[in-house]
Amino acid sequence: MYRLLEPGPVVLLATARKGKANVMAMSWHMMIDFEPPLLACIVSNRNYSFEALRITKECTINIPTVALAAAVVGCGNTCGRTVDKFAAFGLTLRNASLVAAPLIDECYASLECRVVDTRLVTRYNLFVLQVVRAWHDPSVKQPRTIHHRGLGTFMVAGRELHLASRMR
Amino acid sequence: MYRLLEPGPVVLLATARKGKANVMAMSWHMMIDFEPPLLACIVSNRNYSFEALRITKECTINIPTVALAAAVVGCGNTCGRTVDKFAAFGLTLRNASLVAAPLIDECYASLECRVVDTRLVTRYNLFVLQVVRAWHDPSVKQPRTIHHRGLGTFMVAGRELHLASRMR
Repeated sequence: MYRLLEPGPVVLLATARKGKANVMAMSWHMMIDFEPPLLACIVSNRNYSFEALRITKECTINIPTVALAAAVVGCGNTCGRTVDKFAAFGLTLRNASLVAAPLIDECYASLECRVVDTRLVTRYNLFVLQVVRAWHDPSVKQPRTIHHRGLGTFMVAGRELHLASRMR
Repeated sequence: MYRLLEPGPVVLLATARKGKANVMAMSWHMMIDFEPPLLACIVSNRNYSFEALRITKECTINIPTVALAAAVVGCGNTCGRTVDKFAAFGLTLRNASLVAAPLIDECYASLECRVVDTRLVTRYNLFVLQVVRAWHDPSVKQPRTIHHRGLGTFMVAGRELHLASRMR
């Protein structure tokens, strides 16, 4: 699971509250631990998703490839308060197995997550999440993930390099 | 500054304690805020760097490109307790301006950091750092950073994509 997030891709964070799903683009996330699989992410309290995440304590993190770049930027440029981003950007919802937040079908990997620590939410908008289920398309070997360089510039994942590393 | 870290590169975290410098490879980091520039990182308490970071509350984060891949993996495969990694992997130390930890001259960007929040250190080895000074080589426009996919596999930063994003 950590192998999906470590390279630093832009991800789509989906929530559901009162039967209404929403999604946002997010680059500020990192792994915390392997076992149990924990990660941290920053969701600004200016984002519509903030309250849904804080209150429901559930989300999914979905990893797009460059094929979805326009949809990802669309999600980043709009607010779920007024826009149904799934309809607007052609994203297909699928039921998750353990959380109420939806999976995004077009993404090659998805992580179902529960919020497990909110101590740094007030100060930094930092949520600690536990991944309770992970999905990925095993046919995607070298995903062309996109990585935000800021101001509309993205780096697309390039070639792979193999080195004798002891790092997990 | 956030534009250096957001794409998720493997970085080299350098510390200095009792006049002895050390460096480790790190992939688990993220931005927290723009102003002041804050980031979070995980430094395992099994790493020799952990105590230096916890006690001195200072470090530098240095960003290598693929030209340094062998040195980065070397840093990840060895322990500063027994190895002078700078000598072993041909890394040149340079004095930082505001912290005692050294900069690594071969890296195209370096961030001088101070630990500003240790509330999640005991539980998760999670440090909150404030960047107090940032250096980068302006001639490097599209850095070929490396991104850890786990188990000795790295993704090398590929082409750039420009989209009309409102995201900072």
